[in-house]
Amino acid sequence: MNVNCPLPVNGVPGIITLGHGSGGLMTHQLLQTEVFDLLQNDWLDQQHDGATFSLNGKVAFSTDSYVVSPLFFPGGNIGDLAINGTVNDLAMCGAMARYLSLSFIIEEGLELSLFREVLKHIKAAAQAAGVAIVTGDTKVVERGKGDQLFINTSGIGHIHPRAAIHHNRIVPGDVVIVSGEIAAHGMAIMSVRKGLEFETEVCSDTRPLHEMVGKLLDCFGEQVKFLRDPTRGGLASVLNEMTEATKLGVMMNEVSLPLNEQVAAACEMLGLDPLYVANEGIMVAVVSASVAPSVLGALRGMKGGEQAAIIGTVTKEHAGKVVLESRIGGHRVVNFLPGEQLPRIC
Amino acid sequence: MNVNCPLPVNGVPGIITLGHGSGGLMTHQLLQTEVFDLLQNDWLDQQHDGATFSLNGKVAFSTDSYVVSPLFFPGGNIGDLAINGTVNDLAMCGAMARYLSLSFIIEEGLELSLFREVLKHIKAAAQAAGVAIVTGDTKVVERGKGDQLFINTSGIGHIHPRAAIHHNRIVPGDVVIVSGEIAAHGMAIMSVRKGLEFETEVCSDTRPLHEMVGKLLDCFGEQVKFLRDPTRGGLASVLNEMTEATKLGVMMNEVSLPLNEQVAAACEMLGLDPLYVANEGIMVAVVSASVAPSVLGALRGMKGGEQAAIIGTVTKEHAGKVVLESRIGGHRVVNFLPGEQLPRIC
Repeated sequence: MNVNCPLPVNGVPGIITLGHGSGGLMTHQLLQTEVFDLLQNDWLDQQHDGATFSLNGKVAFSTDSYVVSPLFFPGGNIGDLAINGTVNDLAMCGAMARYLSLSFIIEEGLELSLFREVLKHIKAAAQAAGVAIVTGDTKVVERGKGDQLFINTSGIGHIHPRAAIHHNRIVPGDVVIVSGEIAAHGMAIMSVRKGLEFETEVCSDTRPLHEMVGKLLDCFGEQVKFLRDPTRGGLASVLNEMTEATKLGVMMNEVSLPLNEQVAAACEMLGLDPLYVANEGIMVAVVSASVAPSVLGALRGMKGGEQAAIIGTVTKEHAGKVVLESRIGGHRVVNFLPGEQLPRIC
Repeated sequence: MNVNCPLPVNGVPGIITLGHGSGGLMTHQLLQTEVFDLLQNDWLDQQHDGATFSLNGKVAFSTDSYVVSPLFFPGGNIGDLAINGTVNDLAMCGAMARYLSLSFIIEEGLELSLFREVLKHIKAAAQAAGVAIVTGDTKVVERGKGDQLFINTSGIGHIHPRAAIHHNRIVPGDVVIVSGEIAAHGMAIMSVRKGLEFETEVCSDTRPLHEMVGKLLDCFGEQVKFLRDPTRGGLASVLNEMTEATKLGVMMNEVSLPLNEQVAAACEMLGLDPLYVANEGIMVAVVSASVAPSVLGALRGMKGGEQAAIIGTVTKEHAGKVVLESRIGGHRVVNFLPGEQLPRIC
């Protein structure tokens, strides 16, 4: 039995079939020809039910399933998201991702070329983020019971020795910073779905944030009190979760919100509030007021942080609420996103 | 904004909608009312992007996505599988599962009562296996783009100090043991799908195997050379993977295979070979010949191991092949499952 025979198999050229999820020969062939060589490392080479390694000290552990539609969009694809998203979830815990798991749920009929393309992006994103994909799983569901490809990644990373990230460390007077322009990812997806055209393409901001977090923690340690990447639900949801947990308020300044012109125009056109639109490459940091200008300066000197801005302050007033001061000086409460705005954005 | 308001929300009684995957208020409410309280622990209480804890020493890390259909079947459900399956993958690495992640991909329209029922089984299975669900994710896809509920769990566990499990430690003469009757899980699923009726119900064998593995390693340490749970693809696939990796053979004895009568009858009726049918509560152990009788005795004294049997021997002959000696003394090669036999069995 030659397991190195190339796909296509069973006379079906270049299509993933139910047999590829059987756990038998076809699964074995798919993994051998498409996955193991590409993502090669010592752990994956063992082809065991799991990967084994040594860990010492404090670690973070996170998981996310990615169901973004379409699979490819301006600035990225589901493969990038699946790596960067979990790297970023760990980074928000103050951890540098090291080991990732990778699990596919494939709809029967997915073109093999598309699967390969996603795998290439997974490899590139993993290399860029310095993580090893050490274990995985592949399932195939019948046509009409999935949607091309869903990916789960889970990750483990060592926590930075100076990290002390917890919402209970936030006090009134702390400063809220975002590391870049908001709403780009969501609008990139929407521009494809709605067939919108702009002078310059609206691109997803998908990007790993671990280096940015690492440098901030190197320099500012426990002065960095809270980190969160505003993905689904956008900036508004992250800030509402924070104010709910801390029983403090946030006063946010609309003028200071970094927002790309094209993205703003796209939001306007579709009647979407950029505060609720998903991001995949920025973070919210709550830091001590004393270091806020230095943190801002540091972020602006980093790749991906050039547009960082101080957007608000933690307050004792408006406990549990996020209040936005508008361009014309009015105040409004920014609630949680009440329903669904942009399904399957990540 | 009262986040403790019970579901139903938005006038849709007891149904999961796209809004529950928005990352906004409805996601928040679903998690608060249905998940966090039920699965409560110190890590989950933090409601961060990931869980943090300390680890010291050798660990195993594993992932699996569960797409079983139907969600409930005799002897178990997707919730049991999602916990036991990952606990068992870790056990096969010689590790005792400790921390699990839990990620849902829900099809819009799933009944909330069904989701709750699955969650209850998840909780019970996690308690039975002594694992904490420390982090998670919830996505919702549109009707017709999923199939009720898919679950991913990933897990981390400490490796037993006496574990030395690697296929490269297997030598000719080693003995192959299975811990229980084969093919029960797959036939339980098939009996539902095909509406088969038997005198007594054919039940899935889903069960956590960590205690069994722990006890074997306590007693026999490095004499236990290889462990694998024969899920998708069944016993035949696990043995083929082993012979391929070791370049050794396995001579297996059909008479000695533990197989329940009802399960055998169901396989016969559907024209399925039990060697390829999925299991969820047994394992294959390859052990030194000198301890094989003691291992067998130990297994038979454990819950879930009563039907354990020595089923074969590792051979220098038939390199890379699994050979079955039939009841009437004939020999045949048992290959990898060539195509798909039972889709979505786990």
